[in-house]
Amino acid sequence: MKSLVNGKFSNTVDIMDRGFLYGDGVFETLAVQQRRIALWPQHMQRLRLACEKLAIDFPGETLLIDEVKQLLASCHDDVTLRITLTRGVGQRGYRPAPNAVPSRIISLHEMLNTKLAKHNNYNETGINLRCCETRLAKSSLAGLKHLNRLEQVLAQSEWQPNEDIQEGLMLDYDDNVIEGTMSNVFIVKNNQLITPDLSHAGVAGVMRRCIIDTVHEHGIAIDESMVKLSCVKNADEVFVSNSVIGIWPVKYFDSKHWPAPGKLTTIIMQNIEIKNKISGLVI
Amino acid sequence: MKSLVNGKFSNTVDIMDRGFLYGDGVFETLAVQQRRIALWPQHMQRLRLACEKLAIDFPGETLLIDEVKQLLASCHDDVTLRITLTRGVGQRGYRPAPNAVPSRIISLHEMLNTKLAKHNNYNETGINLRCCETRLAKSSLAGLKHLNRLEQVLAQSEWQPNEDIQEGLMLDYDDNVIEGTMSNVFIVKNNQLITPDLSHAGVAGVMRRCIIDTVHEHGIAIDESMVKLSCVKNADEVFVSNSVIGIWPVKYFDSKHWPAPGKLTTIIMQNIEIKNKISGLVI
Repeated sequence: MKSLVNGKFSNTVDIMDRGFLYGDGVFETLAVQQRRIALWPQHMQRLRLACEKLAIDFPGETLLIDEVKQLLASCHDDVTLRITLTRGVGQRGYRPAPNAVPSRIISLHEMLNTKLAKHNNYNETGINLRCCETRLAKSSLAGLKHLNRLEQVLAQSEWQPNEDIQEGLMLDYDDNVIEGTMSNVFIVKNNQLITPDLSHAGVAGVMRRCIIDTVHEHGIAIDESMVKLSCVKNADEVFVSNSVIGIWPVKYFDSKHWPAPGKLTTIIMQNIEIKNKISGLVI
Repeated sequence: MKSLVNGKFSNTVDIMDRGFLYGDGVFETLAVQQRRIALWPQHMQRLRLACEKLAIDFPGETLLIDEVKQLLASCHDDVTLRITLTRGVGQRGYRPAPNAVPSRIISLHEMLNTKLAKHNNYNETGINLRCCETRLAKSSLAGLKHLNRLEQVLAQSEWQPNEDIQEGLMLDYDDNVIEGTMSNVFIVKNNQLITPDLSHAGVAGVMRRCIIDTVHEHGIAIDESMVKLSCVKNADEVFVSNSVIGIWPVKYFDSKHWPAPGKLTTIIMQNIEIKNKISGLVI
């Protein structure tokens, strides 16, 4: 069994768990490579913040580490780790019970996407990007990785797996570029970096945070602002990121071709790779 | 056991069910009174439509009726019935698998809200309504009752159970009144009815549909349009509806008092009550 539900080996949750009833919970997806969990502190920071905003009791990092170690004890492969925290089992009705006991679900998964990506070498060759019709709504939960993810499901359903497209770009209803379906977006223009402002919509990726910090450390200017489609089309370089895939340079979008990876993208990728190898949680 | 998961008595779902992973599914909540399931055809119509929009295979009404009958066979109380359909067990990643087998979860619940409501007699005495700070986002899934319900969870968390408030009014980001946290809203002005347009946000309630049809049959004008807060405040009568509570007249909102139920509200309530008693699915 590759999953723990509230500390016990199990692969099921109660049908009255509010994560299932209403998507009332949050999650993190982490990369485990050579027994090192990449960006662990950053994931914990976002998880803690998400719990706070939803008023779900955070179970504490020590407990989560213990359970993750227990799961990974007999696993020596590179895997993806998902940590889900929900408001727990409740009654029907949207109002959270005042005495709700949160649920913790920790599970290991094959690094399917990464395997595929490595096979295809997207980090080196770059990807084809499309523009999705599904829009991202404004939300007071912008930035958080909660369990209400139908927008992403709809967006990824817009193209077929056999099409040579690796990611879709998502806009909000005011035509601002926000993010990819499963990644954040960065644009290089005149040696400056731009990434969409996520204060109204989108998921503030842990890898995005790591890239912003890295870029700051190297004295490269980065602007978190409103981004229009024209800005993507006129970019010198474009790349997307998440904590499992790392960085994928974009080689094609909307009849525009870029040599991938671009010059600044390459520098950032190298720095992120070094950081990832020396940081994180060693199991 | 008061629940069937894919036709088997169970109260758990797989942690890899996409209903749990991403809120990738839809549901209906139905009132069962004296062995009659109210508004069954209307619930089935919305469920079918929701499945179609999410490209989830609808399991067919016959199968659902068989399973509901099985569950209700030994139950003679008035209950609430929840039918949940999800995209089924899948892999991690937002893209639905092409061969996904949908999950069906059918469960019985105490009529807590209704019991409470009957005890408090809200249908007769009316309710106090508040305005919620949580806004409803635009969505291409407007009208559907899907499993992404964090907005409603946040909205109902805005007031305490011990406050004398029975429902909260929700607006979109353009200050249009859309609905209640668990109900639809109707306004009477100069003997005409108005209910918010739900083409961009909100859940198109089955009881709302029933009220609109009933009102049409009686030749009363009803307008589905954009509604502002001032329209609620200046109304002659206000009421909210859902398929479990029926109709609750509003007696107080934002320092405005109404005698409840109002004249037109009373007529509509009587007609709906008659309809409910003779229609629906008898088990």
